[in-house]
Amino acid sequence: MNDESPQRAGRPRRSGGRAARTALRSAKLAEDLRPVRAGMAGGTYKPLSDADVDAIYEAALVALEEIGLIDAPQSGIDAMVGAGAILGEDGRLRFPRGLVKEMLGKAAKDVTLYGRDPKYDMHLTGTNVHFGTAGAAVHMVDVEGRNYRDSTVQDLHDAAKIVQQMDNIHFLQRPMVCRDITDNREMDYNTIYACVSGTTKHVGTSFTEPDFVGDCLEMLHMMAGSEEAWRERPFVLNSNCFVVPPMKFATESCQVMENCIAGGMPVLLLSAGQAGATAPAPIAGAIVQAVAECLAGVVYVNAIKPGHTAVFGTWPFVSDLRTGAMSGGSGEQALLTAGCAQMHQFLGLPGGAAAGIADAKLPDMQAGWEQMCSNVMAGLSGLNMVYEAAGMHASLLGFCHESLVLGNDLLGQAMRCVRGIEVNEATLGLDTMRSVCMGGPGHYLGSDQTLALMQTEYIYPEVADRTSPKEWQELDKPDLIKTAIAQKEKILAERSRVALSPDVDAAIRERFNIHLPVQ
Amino acid sequence: MNDESPQRAGRPRRSGGRAARTALRSAKLAEDLRPVRAGMAGGTYKPLSDADVDAIYEAALVALEEIGLIDAPQSGIDAMVGAGAILGEDGRLRFPRGLVKEMLGKAAKDVTLYGRDPKYDMHLTGTNVHFGTAGAAVHMVDVEGRNYRDSTVQDLHDAAKIVQQMDNIHFLQRPMVCRDITDNREMDYNTIYACVSGTTKHVGTSFTEPDFVGDCLEMLHMMAGSEEAWRERPFVLNSNCFVVPPMKFATESCQVMENCIAGGMPVLLLSAGQAGATAPAPIAGAIVQAVAECLAGVVYVNAIKPGHTAVFGTWPFVSDLRTGAMSGGSGEQALLTAGCAQMHQFLGLPGGAAAGIADAKLPDMQAGWEQMCSNVMAGLSGLNMVYEAAGMHASLLGFCHESLVLGNDLLGQAMRCVRGIEVNEATLGLDTMRSVCMGGPGHYLGSDQTLALMQTEYIYPEVADRTSPKEWQELDKPDLIKTAIAQKEKILAERSRVALSPDVDAAIRERFNIHLPVQ
Repeated sequence: MNDESPQRAGRPRRSGGRAARTALRSAKLAEDLRPVRAGMAGGTYKPLSDADVDAIYEAALVALEEIGLIDAPQSGIDAMVGAGAILGEDGRLRFPRGLVKEMLGKAAKDVTLYGRDPKYDMHLTGTNVHFGTAGAAVHMVDVEGRNYRDSTVQDLHDAAKIVQQMDNIHFLQRPMVCRDITDNREMDYNTIYACVSGTTKHVGTSFTEPDFVGDCLEMLHMMAGSEEAWRERPFVLNSNCFVVPPMKFATESCQVMENCIAGGMPVLLLSAGQAGATAPAPIAGAIVQAVAECLAGVVYVNAIKPGHTAVFGTWPFVSDLRTGAMSGGSGEQALLTAGCAQMHQFLGLPGGAAAGIADAKLPDMQAGWEQMCSNVMAGLSGLNMVYEAAGMHASLLGFCHESLVLGNDLLGQAMRCVRGIEVNEATLGLDTMRSVCMGGPGHYLGSDQTLALMQTEYIYPEVADRTSPKEWQELDKPDLIKTAIAQKEKILAERSRVALSPDVDAAIRERFNIHLPVQ
Repeated sequence: MNDESPQRAGRPRRSGGRAARTALRSAKLAEDLRPVRAGMAGGTYKPLSDADVDAIYEAALVALEEIGLIDAPQSGIDAMVGAGAILGEDGRLRFPRGLVKEMLGKAAKDVTLYGRDPKYDMHLTGTNVHFGTAGAAVHMVDVEGRNYRDSTVQDLHDAAKIVQQMDNIHFLQRPMVCRDITDNREMDYNTIYACVSGTTKHVGTSFTEPDFVGDCLEMLHMMAGSEEAWRERPFVLNSNCFVVPPMKFATESCQVMENCIAGGMPVLLLSAGQAGATAPAPIAGAIVQAVAECLAGVVYVNAIKPGHTAVFGTWPFVSDLRTGAMSGGSGEQALLTAGCAQMHQFLGLPGGAAAGIADAKLPDMQAGWEQMCSNVMAGLSGLNMVYEAAGMHASLLGFCHESLVLGNDLLGQAMRCVRGIEVNEATLGLDTMRSVCMGGPGHYLGSDQTLALMQTEYIYPEVADRTSPKEWQELDKPDLIKTAIAQKEKILAERSRVALSPDVDAAIRERFNIHLPVQ
């Protein structure tokens, strides 16, 4: 039982009863008393046996030794061959297992991904779980109009403002493309601006060309106050598709990665194969290939800069094999992601993968079951970084602000499941059971234990509805989507609560062509 | 890799390509080739450690020894005291742990619950998972009218007809009350009639009074052809709330149970406490109490008839502690149910618990995430009987036919997750990877392995939508709920495909007052 219960924290003890309990609930809980928070430990779900994990690792090592990867840039070839990789006459770079293991020894572990506000720092270790957005959707879902339209920089900034207010969304990786900015250089730095000016949580982004990294680093130095301050706490990560599966380096993205590493920016080594298309169709095989590709990335990063922060980003996706189209909302996707989490834990590396994707076009019942299935399984498997966890529809093509608001409730519930069942003398409850059953009231409604656990062990939704049918009718049958729209509009009506300081903002606007109007 | 792949089963080998793959898919798969089926084994998710399981079992034994249960009928007291229980001066019946363990030794294990059609028999053993309905909703959800109305016997029969057509709903326990039948005796046998005439899957039901069991057995004998045939394959189970938590026998329900046991009907020993109200607020404590109560039920059943088929029905529910109202859609509920499944496995008994309940009033996004969360966790935990898995809204107060149709897709996906990740030399895929990457096409779309796994390893939804935004617009933006309504109406427009034979039906209608019109 929690010694920090509301009663012991100094509030008067109250008798049971609905009004008292509702009042007690209305006080916002201190962060450390909340029933769920970022970084809770999962790991109770293990889709792979220990022997399965060994077999997948061994197959990945064989793939690296015998198949290897092609198309690294010359700078990468030089660094990796220098470290012990072997360049074949077929142009493929192969990795002896000794090299892989040596680089695993050098790789950064137990890393922290920083937020602009330190309270949002994320410690990636063990089975700690964090949920956040990601992706490169090209559409916004217009829920009221039942329509898909091009996504804009304003949409991205709005997503950042919403994420900032959502307790159960722990980071913002850029989920959509600013299609109203046609110059890619401008798009890249405007993407960072739109995200960082809307949230103080950790941000992830991509770069279109290696050349564009410099501008962005300059902006980040301005935001941080100095290059030194930036390098001390880099609050933006480069989500880097350094491979084009199967088993090919993405030449330009590798050059982007080298520039980011030089600039002190953490990287996400992202292998996004599609089972049955660019990865083997069996779930196990898709994991093997993703692990092999990301291990090549670990060699690459640590050959350049030992111990540089890199997230092991095995993101295998699922194809609907009838059509070849992506199906991020499938049960197979949930298994792929959870299986990857086990491999991260086996390797001892900070890891991330994709979950929470809906194939549904709108935030409907299908979206709900698709988003929950992979999110809760990713959480239970102890995935450090659950990417795409909220807002994502149409198998990554559409992003939805209302879904972010709804996703916050969904993820709160998923994280409650990650927290799990605490078993100890107090929670086993024999003393309470004795006093309730033998000479007591015959129910637990007003018991001290019940009141103490009410806020600290049970999580309550923000927008989801728990009324009885009678109450629901009296409330004029609230509609979930309308409730979400109202909450979204309330957040977006306010100026960003965490905008950049006016001085910094003015300096950035002086130096860069910022498309987002001054808010 | 599956040796029974479509290619090897005699169909011509086809080249990759969308049309070919779509055509291949359109052929209905043989039952043993389907990617998911009833009774797949879970168990990869374990919310409790071994020490936690031991602690919960020990606490339950202590609760039975020291607190015991009150209010058993005299017949039950006689049987249990005869077996070794101790009746205290306080009227409570206490159970020495030796007695509990002796009765656990006698209890039925690895049981079969029969369907009227043997292909729907369910083998409850190990971590085999089956999903089905249950409950006692008093309302039907009118999705088109956004309304709740009283449920009727026709609604119940319609639910049975729908369940019959849903591959991923494996049994029908009566989910709603026939409120248009005011005579309880008539209601009880009409409930059985409405269910059995609509489905050949296993059926569960309840009885209002001990006296009513006889009529119902008479009807079941007529349906089976004879009493002997009924006793050979009893296809209806008595879902029996034999306790009123905390730690009280439900006197009348116990008498119902005794009559059912005498009549050869399997029983579900159902303990439906509500954490924070009629069970301890901590999740662990609620499990302890449910286990203790069901263990008392095991003693009861096996004192009367050793080895009689009884499902260990720990169904602890969750209260929203702010209001005391039930919250079946919560993450806490999912944990409770999964934790119970581990206790069933520890005890080696066939077990059931509740999952899939939505608090949402309508089949909206909230309903989707609520139903998936607890269903997939129950499945992964290896729960033999997942009750309330489809159709249930408003925390058990409303039942929804459209939700059954949608739930079939949801449960198919959940069962795909239960099936898990198969790891062997073929699925690890190194050979395919080699041939694709080195001199091959550089993708897996047309590979033999991909085509072979397309139908047998990947499950495709029936009503859920996987189109791209472009296709979705071309299809005039199909609405999930309208699709479900259309499928429901198609099923309900047909006469039950598994109705009773006209002779049997006439004889039953001669003997009983059947409210359902001749279909």
